[in-house]
Formats: sequence, C-alpha cells, structure tokens
Amino acid sequence: MTYYMATKLRVPFEEALQLTENALKAEGFGVVSRIDLQQTFKAKIGVEFRPYTILGACNPSLAYEALQLEDKVGTMLPCNVIAQEMIPGEVEIAAIDPVASMQAIGNPGLAAAAGLVREKLTRVIEALSSQADR
Amino acid sequence: MTYYMATKLRVPFEEALQLTENALKAEGFGVVSRIDLQQTFKAKIGVEFRPYTILGACNPSLAYEALQLEDKVGTMLPCNVIAQEMIPGEVEIAAIDPVASMQAIGNPGLAAAAGLVREKLTRVIEALSSQADR
Repeated sequence: MTYYMATKLRVPFEEALQLTENALKAEGFGVVSRIDLQQTFKAKIGVEFRPYTILGACNPSLAYEALQLEDKVGTMLPCNVIAQEMIPGEVEIAAIDPVASMQAIGNPGLAAAAGLVREKLTRVIEALSSQADR
Repeated sequence: MTYYMATKLRVPFEEALQLTENALKAEGFGVVSRIDLQQTFKAKIGVEFRPYTILGACNPSLAYEALQLEDKVGTMLPCNVIAQEMIPGEVEIAAIDPVASMQAIGNPGLAAAAGLVREKLTRVIEALSSQADR
C-alpha cells in the first residue's frame, strides 16, 4: 500500500500549480493553504531547494462530516497535494491517500469517509494525467 | 497507540492560539499555515461550527532532512497543531504525532526523524500544560 497518488506534468511549475488547483476545484476542493518550501528553506535555513509547493486541499462538506466522526481529525487536514519539479520542465504532482494516512486513527467510520476523499483525489490525479498526455 | 498529543487551556481562543504559536517557536517551529475551520464552514457550506483552527507547524531544518529521506513526505507536512473550543472557555490543543501519521510511509529512516519531531511537539504540549496549571 502506498500513501499517495501521483502523476507528472511537462509544463512550467506555476502552470502545474494552476492546473492542479483547477482539477481540485472540479472535484469540490478549495485550496486553503499554499506553502512554498523552496522559498521557506531559502529564507529560514539558507538552503537552495527545487521548486516544491504544498497545496492544502479541503472539501468543506467532507471535512465537516469527518469532524463529526473524529473531532481531532483536523491534525490530518487539509489533504495535501504537492508539486515538485524533480527535473527541469517535469513537475510531479502527488496527492495524499487519506485512507493510508488516517489508518493511524483507527476509526472505521472515518476510514469510509476517507475512502470517498481518496476517490475524488484519484480523479484529480487522473484528470491531470490525461492533460499530461495531450 | 494514539495519533496526537493534547492538553487543555482555560483561556480565550485567540490567546490559546498565541500561546501555542509561542510554544512552537520555542521548539524551532514556525507557523506556515493557519486555517480557520469555523470561518471556512460558515463561508463555504453555511454551517455554524465551534472555534477550530489548524496551525501548520514547520521546523525547516527537520523538514529539509525529512525530504532528503522521502521526497513525497510533503504530503504529510507541515505538522498540524489544532486548537478547538470544545466548551466555552476551554480550548483543547492537539499536535499530530508524526510517528503515527507517517507509519503509512514505511520508511525506517524517516520514522527516526519523525521521532525527533514527536519529542519536540511533546515538549510543546507539556509547556502548554504547565501554563494551564498556573
């Protein structure tokens, strides 16, 4: 069992982020946080790093439902989708598999809800994959 | 095995957030994201919810080290610390246990690094607990 779903896009980094945000929106996820690790590492520890951004994706209805089942599930929200430019011109997009990450919680009802989120995030990655093939 | 470390503070919600941010800073964590779920649920799905904020805590050096060990660990970063007012005047603070959440990754080297982060987050919660007793 892996802990993420991933694909690769051959577009500039910023465009990859925009495509990802659009694909998330189509599945009902808003981006509620955006962390630029390249910038953070440069500013805080003076280290050069590849472009690497963490998007926090939140489907409000499903997050609300999850919180009814597990009040501290917020420690694992939002669901992260990362973009990193591994080699110039090739951006890997990887979405967390919430079923994998939330297995540590050990709540069967939550696992079912996480399964729905996984389906949506899988469709996000598939939608991006089909764009990558164009 | 639980997936979080927690304590309770009897202070106003905003003060609890500030105390948490200070305690995180003392252990080398910056807050790189802040998600107000009460506001998000109100705005996006028109639902009333208790005060509930997700702080994304990042120790840049340890995050950088983790990324050397596991390039997609960003799907589980930053480490979340949540604050929620369960009953008026009582704010629960809970930090993710990164050893628990990252067990799905199955990377022994990363598990060791996550252990260091857990120690730091445990000290954050202990520091807040001692303030709660004052």
